[in-house]
Amino acid sequence: MTGDLPFAHVAIIGLGLLGGSVGLGVSAHLPGVRLTGYDADPATRARAAERGLVDEVFPSAAEAVAEADLVILCVPVGAMASAAGEIAAALKPGALVSDVGSSKQSVAKALATALPDQAVIPAHPVAGTERSGPDAGFATLFQHRWCIITPPEGADPELIARLTAFWEALGARVEIMDAAHHDLVLAITSHLPHLIAYTIVGTASDLETVTRGEVIKYSAGGFRDFTRIAASDPVMWRDVFLSNKDAVLDMLQRFSEDLSALQRAIRWGDGDALFDLFTRTRAVRRSIIEEGQDDARPDFGRSDHEAAG
Amino acid sequence: MTGDLPFAHVAIIGLGLLGGSVGLGVSAHLPGVRLTGYDADPATRARAAERGLVDEVFPSAAEAVAEADLVILCVPVGAMASAAGEIAAALKPGALVSDVGSSKQSVAKALATALPDQAVIPAHPVAGTERSGPDAGFATLFQHRWCIITPPEGADPELIARLTAFWEALGARVEIMDAAHHDLVLAITSHLPHLIAYTIVGTASDLETVTRGEVIKYSAGGFRDFTRIAASDPVMWRDVFLSNKDAVLDMLQRFSEDLSALQRAIRWGDGDALFDLFTRTRAVRRSIIEEGQDDARPDFGRSDHEAAG
Repeated sequence: MTGDLPFAHVAIIGLGLLGGSVGLGVSAHLPGVRLTGYDADPATRARAAERGLVDEVFPSAAEAVAEADLVILCVPVGAMASAAGEIAAALKPGALVSDVGSSKQSVAKALATALPDQAVIPAHPVAGTERSGPDAGFATLFQHRWCIITPPEGADPELIARLTAFWEALGARVEIMDAAHHDLVLAITSHLPHLIAYTIVGTASDLETVTRGEVIKYSAGGFRDFTRIAASDPVMWRDVFLSNKDAVLDMLQRFSEDLSALQRAIRWGDGDALFDLFTRTRAVRRSIIEEGQDDARPDFGRSDHEAAG
Repeated sequence: MTGDLPFAHVAIIGLGLLGGSVGLGVSAHLPGVRLTGYDADPATRARAAERGLVDEVFPSAAEAVAEADLVILCVPVGAMASAAGEIAAALKPGALVSDVGSSKQSVAKALATALPDQAVIPAHPVAGTERSGPDAGFATLFQHRWCIITPPEGADPELIARLTAFWEALGARVEIMDAAHHDLVLAITSHLPHLIAYTIVGTASDLETVTRGEVIKYSAGGFRDFTRIAASDPVMWRDVFLSNKDAVLDMLQRFSEDLSALQRAIRWGDGDALFDLFTRTRAVRRSIIEEGQDDARPDFGRSDHEAAG
């Protein structure tokens, strides 16, 4: 630990939306930190160097992490094991390895297996956009967002405190959570919404009675919001669903039951059941806005934007 | 027809988000038009008068429409029949009656029954926000949005042309469509997305393993977008589902089948099936942005907003 910096040298493996935003956030908020990085894709490495996502981009993960005190793996969760394998022999003995993956039990297991002698504390900043790649990142992505840290049993409290300080420096609020509970919470707040959005966009694309052009033209009735989520990175999301299978299937089962109940209410003309649910869901929206997790402007402020444009 | 105005006097019945926006749009873009209005709720009438949503608010629907050339019913689709009944005896013989309802076959039937001797041409501007009530409307709501006009068989072409000119003056693009086809198109682009959003917000509120507070805190992972839609007006949406039952149940059935296929792919670890769908859905998003139906800024520009705030 150097002066006030939680980590003097941070290495980022994977320079897409998340990795790039971590790099830009560190540059903005922890200017004394040495930043190195690597991405498996040569084109992403070149673009990351151009944008200055990190101070130095290396041609191998091993070189990028060699001197680092904190290594953050910003790769799809299905690629964590192999990324950890690539850096295992090159890590400094005292270095902390963390990540930004959206499922935590599977990542904890993969990293513990690949790095048995290393300090590992997984983390998940709950933030993102539908963009991906080295041009997608921005320094304020984590501002006012939560970062969930899931320390394994026996993790060093001082390392947990330093990782907490790191994410707080990037503007996040930190919560410590058990990995299994994290996976349940994210299954309902993130994974199921993505699964449903992907499904309905797929359903709408395959109709024989309504053309694709009509779906696109009249999407302002609600559909367009789902397409934003369904434009998220395909590899990242494939891995999330496969790695958090049990929790996702559990939440999906509950959702399907609730949807069947609503289907039945529509079929039988039970307006009261519909009205009761629709009234209840309004309150959840109000709470999210009060908690600062969404934009209170109606229609996400689209009307302002369009009036101006 | 007075000068260049498609209608010299427009009456608006129902002064919520849609009715208020029509009123403000007319004031902004068709300044010579006389605007009268009515709402069943006395508090809404008072607020509408304060905001100047129309030139004059009347204590009864009959008085509001007595001199009008165009009457637009901006009430929930389940209230169309009774609203039409209230004005039937007061309408000028040549007046055109239209509406803004989200389902069109049921409205066409209700209006034809209640107003057998009147010209009726239903319409549906595909625009809205999650807000409702007399404070929710704004003049630019219809800018760049589509308005679907569904003339019944034998409708006067000149009246169709005037109604088209009216909506174009408010900034909308107009499409003429068969009512039955409209109901299918909107079932997938608007009604099913709302039904799904209401359902998942309900599911998330009822979990015993994840608290309501956690759902709200970590909603930035995707869930919050659904809550915006699920905050829409409960009465309006109850009526939409009950009035467009057949098309909604058809689309819901297709969605459920597709969701089951995805559930199976997750259960069996079929990553290729997931990846293929997630890649296909990205293209739909691009088309919607190209067609001008959504904001291209990532995350709806939330990052800009939050960075500024």
